[in-house]
Amino acid sequence: MINYKERLSSIRAFVFDFDGVMTNGDVWVYADRQTVRCGNIKDGFAMQYAVKKGYLVALISGATSASIDNRMAMLGVSHCYTGCADKLPVYERFLQEHGLADSQVLCMGDDLPDYPLLRRAGVATCPADAATEIKAIAHYISPLPGGRGCVRDVIEQTLRLQGAWFHPEAVVW
Amino acid sequence: MINYKERLSSIRAFVFDFDGVMTNGDVWVYADRQTVRCGNIKDGFAMQYAVKKGYLVALISGATSASIDNRMAMLGVSHCYTGCADKLPVYERFLQEHGLADSQVLCMGDDLPDYPLLRRAGVATCPADAATEIKAIAHYISPLPGGRGCVRDVIEQTLRLQGAWFHPEAVVW
Amino acid sequence: MINYKERLSSIRAFVFDFDGVMTNGDVWVYADRQTVRCGNIKDGFAMQYAVKKGYLVALISGATSASIDNRMAMLGVSHCYTGCADKLPVYERFLQEHGLADSQVLCMGDDLPDYPLLRRAGVATCPADAATEIKAIAHYISPLPGGRGCVRDVIEQTLRLQGAWFHPEAVVW
Amino acid sequence: MINYKERLSSIRAFVFDFDGVMTNGDVWVYADRQTVRCGNIKDGFAMQYAVKKGYLVALISGATSASIDNRMAMLGVSHCYTGCADKLPVYERFLQEHGLADSQVLCMGDDLPDYPLLRRAGVATCPADAATEIKAIAHYISPLPGGRGCVRDVIEQTLRLQGAWFHPEAVVW
Repeated sequence: MINYKERLSSIRAFVFDFDGVMTNGDVWVYADRQTVRCGNIKDGFAMQYAVKKGYLVALISGATSASIDNRMAMLGVSHCYTGCADKLPVYERFLQEHGLADSQVLCMGDDLPDYPLLRRAGVATCPADAATEIKAIAHYISPLPGGRGCVRDVIEQTLRLQGAWFHPEAVVW
Repeated sequence: MINYKERLSSIRAFVFDFDGVMTNGDVWVYADRQTVRCGNIKDGFAMQYAVKKGYLVALISGATSASIDNRMAMLGVSHCYTGCADKLPVYERFLQEHGLADSQVLCMGDDLPDYPLLRRAGVATCPADAATEIKAIAHYISPLPGGRGCVRDVIEQTLRLQGAWFHPEAVVW
Repeated sequence: MINYKERLSSIRAFVFDFDGVMTNGDVWVYADRQTVRCGNIKDGFAMQYAVKKGYLVALISGATSASIDNRMAMLGVSHCYTGCADKLPVYERFLQEHGLADSQVLCMGDDLPDYPLLRRAGVATCPADAATEIKAIAHYISPLPGGRGCVRDVIEQTLRLQGAWFHPEAVVW
Repeated sequence: MINYKERLSSIRAFVFDFDGVMTNGDVWVYADRQTVRCGNIKDGFAMQYAVKKGYLVALISGATSASIDNRMAMLGVSHCYTGCADKLPVYERFLQEHGLADSQVLCMGDDLPDYPLLRRAGVATCPADAATEIKAIAHYISPLPGGRGCVRDVIEQTLRLQGAWFHPEAVVW
């Protein structure tokens, strides 16, 4: 745990999976084949805020859906990689383009396709309801399941530790 | 707690946030960029009833969505302010227009954009799953989380205390 | 409780509220002002089966929504009264048209508009998360909340007691 | 339990119900009479993976919905039988066409229409919130309710036991 907190102090970028992390895993399927997701407002607030404070925020998802693209666009997350059958090359390119080391990246994923990224990232995190193999290698398991604030949890912890979270009395919105 | 009940007796107006208060924070995102929310029927019943009994009910939300506008219109909530990046000036104008003092306003919010309003309102309340900073300054934390009846909870308490809630045996609908 | 079981033996008709009984109270609101509800599959199975076995099943709801009409039509519930600001006259007409006494009717509701019906029905029931006033007058409070099988619960109990529920080994679908 | 594990070693095919197994039983009903379901991402991942590893995966559902057809198509489940008022003949034809014995089939269902299949399948399983009669005959009751990973649970157990589940360190996606 001390180790985890120490690692947080180096974080400059966040890499998130979508389904099961920003959602509870639910995917609505319509007659027109549209798949619709549901984002969490507190997660979204933290992602927007991290972007404003200069952190890099990226999404790397195996799925392809206008619902995901739209959600990320609304939050100002411009590094939005969807349809990634293999996530590791995407992760590596993202780090290279931004001159990031693994130790500067916090990654959160919930299932096996996230495994290689969690092995690499400086801080590997997951929701409370992640797959067995994922929980086994996470530095931090959020007490919150996917879609109920686990993204907010790790962003808030990182920014607090680095003195970048809100000072509520001094807020100018 | 005695303090809280005493404060309730002065309330003439309710100011609510939307996402995370009237909902559990879920936002459905569609391919056409429409964002859809889900309201709670018991909350809606209480809001409609408060309006009928002459209380002022206002919504002040940072979000912009036809889903929110439509929900409020259905409930007869005419003071519906959306897209408010900064909520305090909106709150102040609402009070001024209606000749209200802070002490006559109950406010419920769940996250940092609601902080300045909760600092001002006579009764500051929040759902069970509000952000840490919000819970720290609330006079009352509902046992119910957002979207599961916390709005009904505070309206019902206020109207009961003021003798304005239903007498079920005398109900004429 | 003995009283409740005895009362069940006379039941020939079921009268249900919709929002908060067949749902958990969630109402999705779209940009086109469409309101969408979500029904529970086990509740629906029991309602269909009760209709097939010759029981009268009626819906009396204060809301008006194509979503509700469509759901009831799919389940074969032809006595579907929506937009009922005042439910009691509708209840009385339904009983009169079918030659039913109050003692032959099981009613389930969750909030104050259902109060007068629950006062009249031979068996007054409600979901686990009903309003305070409703729980106070219910003969039976289901352990299940709205939308999670409380309708199935009371139909199944009634039909079992009357020997009309399934004998699984003899099922011909 | 030993019996259950032994039985798992013979499984070559999975037969699932849809509503209440792959979902929590929720069905969204729209004004255009479209019914929409919501699938779980971890269940979907396991189904796709089982198909890739050569297992037969079939859906036998009483419902008819483009939402179900689309979801199954996205997961690569080509044996998708919907609108089955009577499931047993469909089950039998599926086994016959693929030269399967009952002992090679794991079936998961949650309600009475699944009863005859669960009586026949080599391994009868159900979600935590299945109907009473179904739980009574299941060889294994998942600790997870419908729509929250019970499908993943039984697929993962079967494939692990047969050495066909992931070796995460050797993953090439």
